[in-house]
Amino acid sequence: MKLATLKSASRDGRLVVVSRDLAWCADASHIAPTLQAALDDWAQAEPALRTLADELERETIPRERFHERDALSPLPRAYQWADGSAYVNHVELVRKARGAELPESFWTDPLMYQGGSDAFLAPREDIPLADDSWGLDFEAEVAVVTGDAPQGCSVEEAAGAIRLIMILNDVSLRGLIPGELAKGFGFFQSKPPTAFSPVAVTPDELGEAWDGRKLHLPLRSWLNGAVFGEPDCQVDMTFDFAQLVAHVAKTRPLTAGTIVGSGTVSNKLGDGPGKPVSEGGKGYSCIAEIRMIETIYDGAPKTRFMIPGDQVRIEMLDRSGKSIFGAIEQTVVRYAR
Amino acid sequence: MKLATLKSASRDGRLVVVSRDLAWCADASHIAPTLQAALDDWAQAEPALRTLADELERETIPRERFHERDALSPLPRAYQWADGSAYVNHVELVRKARGAELPESFWTDPLMYQGGSDAFLAPREDIPLADDSWGLDFEAEVAVVTGDAPQGCSVEEAAGAIRLIMILNDVSLRGLIPGELAKGFGFFQSKPPTAFSPVAVTPDELGEAWDGRKLHLPLRSWLNGAVFGEPDCQVDMTFDFAQLVAHVAKTRPLTAGTIVGSGTVSNKLGDGPGKPVSEGGKGYSCIAEIRMIETIYDGAPKTRFMIPGDQVRIEMLDRSGKSIFGAIEQTVVRYAR
Repeated sequence: MKLATLKSASRDGRLVVVSRDLAWCADASHIAPTLQAALDDWAQAEPALRTLADELERETIPRERFHERDALSPLPRAYQWADGSAYVNHVELVRKARGAELPESFWTDPLMYQGGSDAFLAPREDIPLADDSWGLDFEAEVAVVTGDAPQGCSVEEAAGAIRLIMILNDVSLRGLIPGELAKGFGFFQSKPPTAFSPVAVTPDELGEAWDGRKLHLPLRSWLNGAVFGEPDCQVDMTFDFAQLVAHVAKTRPLTAGTIVGSGTVSNKLGDGPGKPVSEGGKGYSCIAEIRMIETIYDGAPKTRFMIPGDQVRIEMLDRSGKSIFGAIEQTVVRYAR
Repeated sequence: MKLATLKSASRDGRLVVVSRDLAWCADASHIAPTLQAALDDWAQAEPALRTLADELERETIPRERFHERDALSPLPRAYQWADGSAYVNHVELVRKARGAELPESFWTDPLMYQGGSDAFLAPREDIPLADDSWGLDFEAEVAVVTGDAPQGCSVEEAAGAIRLIMILNDVSLRGLIPGELAKGFGFFQSKPPTAFSPVAVTPDELGEAWDGRKLHLPLRSWLNGAVFGEPDCQVDMTFDFAQLVAHVAKTRPLTAGTIVGSGTVSNKLGDGPGKPVSEGGKGYSCIAEIRMIETIYDGAPKTRFMIPGDQVRIEMLDRSGKSIFGAIEQTVVRYAR
């Protein structure tokens, strides 16, 4: 089942089910007005939504064209957005570029930050940038949306609480990160609103590409039309989604509609860092990573961060080449009051 | 105007207006089903809620008894909970206790962390603790709830976006904080669910005690029945609420229902740290602070953190001795699955 939220007069949009080929949708607001409402009452909502999705595939109900540009993020705002950093390879590279060791505990205790969740960008929405020195970067990631689970739930229970899967652009302001992290309280201004894919899908929709804890497909990113990254999501993922969700719930209950992110998807090449796609590598899921590699090899970064006019595209194709989640396509624009 | 959210079958409770003396309330769900819905459409909802509140004071409408124990946090869950650390005195003490200098920038650039907002505790709800070594502490704070404002809004615009004021207990797990902060991504597991006061009030309700940016009253805390702190909220508050709200909105829009906290309220005594109330001082708004002072003077902390059976109470009285927000009263209980 594929679900999306169309723009409407409400801040939370209008829930629709979307056909497998992303061409059609059917209004689901009689089942649940919003995706959050569906997740709040998933036991009731899910069977009704699945019936509607089946009817849509069989073309037995009124349907409308689905346009990705009309979609908001599936949860246009959420009560919990917890972003992990499961590709420890990525973290190791960040540290290597600044000459810092990776603490051993980073391989056993997930890094995770509390993200701002009150106003996500739509998947085709411009990214407003007020100051180029903020160092705007994209981060291509995978995320799950959960149901409820008790505080202290096991990794197995956490796996069972995964309801939906999405991809996302975790927009980051690299120029503001060092100052914020030095203050010790984590990211705040350096993580402006995130954008999620046009549709969220149930795990069964992914078939064998979803093993219950990891997604076994490449995540593709383009920067200004050129392929920038296509790392495999299951490779080098030190912590799987069940472990990340359990981490969220260690000292608090897990609540319906919680979004848990993977962190920037990143693959090593042998024992070293990856190579650009143009050199036969898997490329990168953010600009910061290629800049770190440039720093390691050449002493300084060459690739610049994004400025107004730059475009990023993030998409995942199934094994037959069809888009699963629709595409995130965003242009950076100058923000001015 | 005073607003509260009563327990109901919904996760978001039911909105009521509460009488000035906290004795009575009237259902407001015909105006807005939830406080978030009212904030989302404040220009429409506010006048209608004020009319209802006037009618309640004049006893011209059906009313029911208001019991603080029936209240959820005014926003039982929120899309944004950003907690500042505006009493830099408190931060300086934390650092002094571990022999660290306070960076000069801390006096000009607010500390703020992104808090978990998906499931707040009710003001009379037990605090579940799974492991005493986590070092459970309370933190008595003031918070504002905002409306919408554009990204990059000025401090003056931020002041104008303040809709409601509450007090809160920012429950903290001191034993988990050093490890999390060392990882560099800020608080996550060390900040379990927060509890807010039974009612939220509009600024006008505070009269001269609210100057548009700061609250000019003592915030009182009791630990196991004994007065623990009564610092004045306007004293030693390095950053006012308008500055904190503007900090939230530097790189993202400010959205309706955003909660912005003051951080632990803390008063110095002359040039040194405060004294316990029993010694004629203003006391403390968290256990960690007295432990720091014990560490500075005696080389080691004496006061233990909270364990099952311990109780905390947080309340603010107006100049005539009446409770403004109702009382937060919570008991720590052993959490077990």
